[in-house]
Amino acid sequence: MGYDLTLQGLHDLAEGAAVLGTGGGGDPYIGRLLVERQLHAGRTVHIIDVDELPDDALVLPSSMMGAPTVFVEKLPSGDGNVAAFRALEAHLGRTAAAVMPTECGGLNSMIPLMLGAQLGLPVVDADGMGRAFPELQMQTFGVLGVSGSPMAIASDHGDTCIIDATDNKRMEQLARALTIQMGGASYITDYPMDTAEVRRTSVHGTLSLCRDIGQALRQARASHADPFDALTDMLAGTIYSLGVVLFRGKVVDVERRTVDGFARGKALLESAEGPGDVLEITFQNEHLVARRNGTVIAIVPDLICTLNSESGAPIPTESLAYGQRLTVYGISTPPIMRTPEALACFGPAGFGLPDPYTPLHDLLART
Amino acid sequence: MGYDLTLQGLHDLAEGAAVLGTGGGGDPYIGRLLVERQLHAGRTVHIIDVDELPDDALVLPSSMMGAPTVFVEKLPSGDGNVAAFRALEAHLGRTAAAVMPTECGGLNSMIPLMLGAQLGLPVVDADGMGRAFPELQMQTFGVLGVSGSPMAIASDHGDTCIIDATDNKRMEQLARALTIQMGGASYITDYPMDTAEVRRTSVHGTLSLCRDIGQALRQARASHADPFDALTDMLAGTIYSLGVVLFRGKVVDVERRTVDGFARGKALLESAEGPGDVLEITFQNEHLVARRNGTVIAIVPDLICTLNSESGAPIPTESLAYGQRLTVYGISTPPIMRTPEALACFGPAGFGLPDPYTPLHDLLART
Repeated sequence: MGYDLTLQGLHDLAEGAAVLGTGGGGDPYIGRLLVERQLHAGRTVHIIDVDELPDDALVLPSSMMGAPTVFVEKLPSGDGNVAAFRALEAHLGRTAAAVMPTECGGLNSMIPLMLGAQLGLPVVDADGMGRAFPELQMQTFGVLGVSGSPMAIASDHGDTCIIDATDNKRMEQLARALTIQMGGASYITDYPMDTAEVRRTSVHGTLSLCRDIGQALRQARASHADPFDALTDMLAGTIYSLGVVLFRGKVVDVERRTVDGFARGKALLESAEGPGDVLEITFQNEHLVARRNGTVIAIVPDLICTLNSESGAPIPTESLAYGQRLTVYGISTPPIMRTPEALACFGPAGFGLPDPYTPLHDLLART
Repeated sequence: MGYDLTLQGLHDLAEGAAVLGTGGGGDPYIGRLLVERQLHAGRTVHIIDVDELPDDALVLPSSMMGAPTVFVEKLPSGDGNVAAFRALEAHLGRTAAAVMPTECGGLNSMIPLMLGAQLGLPVVDADGMGRAFPELQMQTFGVLGVSGSPMAIASDHGDTCIIDATDNKRMEQLARALTIQMGGASYITDYPMDTAEVRRTSVHGTLSLCRDIGQALRQARASHADPFDALTDMLAGTIYSLGVVLFRGKVVDVERRTVDGFARGKALLESAEGPGDVLEITFQNEHLVARRNGTVIAIVPDLICTLNSESGAPIPTESLAYGQRLTVYGISTPPIMRTPEALACFGPAGFGLPDPYTPLHDLLART
């Protein structure tokens, strides 16, 4: 049930969130510092289970929007999320009882923790995907019928906007256009929900799960155990069930551009086994598909994680660089993310990929 | 003082507004039809003087935003301005007592007339420039200290947004980005004002002035008099004071692109006197500068109007075409538009033009 986050817990949570961020969701180091500042100022991050929410509560998810390549150059101020949160409260004429994340990610798991500490509100242990996705309509909230609108968006310059769009995809388009004008990064509060909606449409327990992933990696390092074995053992008992090493190799090429408000590109890895065995990962903020010698070995919404081969530390897309030794690790997405409605929204077709969705289990069985 | 607009008055007003629109502000034919439909439905357009406003009234200016090249392909629905108007009222928690135009233009003078008829509200006989300008910060309201925010913006698809920007230029940038996403045209309500602000910051009497311009042109045609002489005589007694034929010629080239949410380009005219005497007009929705054989003969914020050489009918930038016989007619801008603060906002520098502002009177004296 509910607990106050410790400094150690924060470090673990930030690292685990970056693992589930599948290359996106922002850098865990920057995100962690934002929350550390709150803890050092004597404030508390109180995490609660969805069952602990009062029945008639208003819950407001909070996150950053934009290209992670921008976040590392233009650090979040800490004020923007408060501004967006208050703007949406004012627009709705209601006061929120809790804040929650929309996704798992090094930065976007941290934003609601920071905001909860700043506002003295609990943070709900759940989110809208149990991973990271680049676009606002790509959330279980929307797939299960919640409107993302009205949403609030704030800039680093003090501007705030309210968007009331007719559907969640249009909301994404309007918010993306504003985010680009705001300098490529913005602070948002969307998908206002009541308690029943949170319980029905969210992926439960993901903040604690991120913390457990980070803890497993930390303990493996301390005991000189294999971090990937530790991760696989730990995930076996969760809603993700399957975690598996897909490829080990060296980054030999990265093509990355910040376009249309996203970090888009490809990374090419050459196998540790030798040349001629290559893995190509395509990303749009997050890793979308991994192709080994031309054959798909993992594809959205299953998770494709790029981890440091020594430590298991997650490497976000904006930090991929030539020469890095990486282990590409696949995690099967939870069942709520694999319904036909969910796949229509954030399966391969949602990203314009030509390949069908094939579950990680099945792809593994083929090889 | 206040009067109900007749069908004849509407025709005159639409044509006069397109003259003062200086090539921008939208097509007068489309705009007029929108209001005609209201009159035919038995509704009334009631125009009132700024002095007739109750002292504590809220007044909301209403207009369309975007590239006029888009307006002629995607006709205004009539619902968007109501949506934006109501969204801003809801955001402010107040009910407006009147609507008003932001600019003079074939379409943007009509939008508030249509809205006033639809909502049963009077339309204030004033606007924020006494001509048309392409960007939202280019209004006397803002130059004289009124905030354009909060503003509301609506699409043809039922989306509405509220923008609360830290300054009017930033508001323009955010609204422009949304307008592009909304298909290149949007419906806006900005610069919410109280009665004192309307009286202090607006250009007074411009709706009636548009009607008088249209009437002068119509009467000249009926009596086979020269429409340009009629225009010059009529303007002499107004706040514009000076109207003058600058050039007569044939359109020999038009370069026009719809970029960044604007219709941008140049038109080249060859003199009726013969080749070797050319006029180049640069526009961004509106005509910005006219150069005869390389020498500036008129420049913003003075008005550069492209009129049919036979009838005096205004030709907007989106309708300029090879072979048209045009008379380029200059009108000096009213004094409120020529202060140093006004020129900093919408003088040549506001458009990135290298030339200084020189009043039409002085440029005429040089030639």
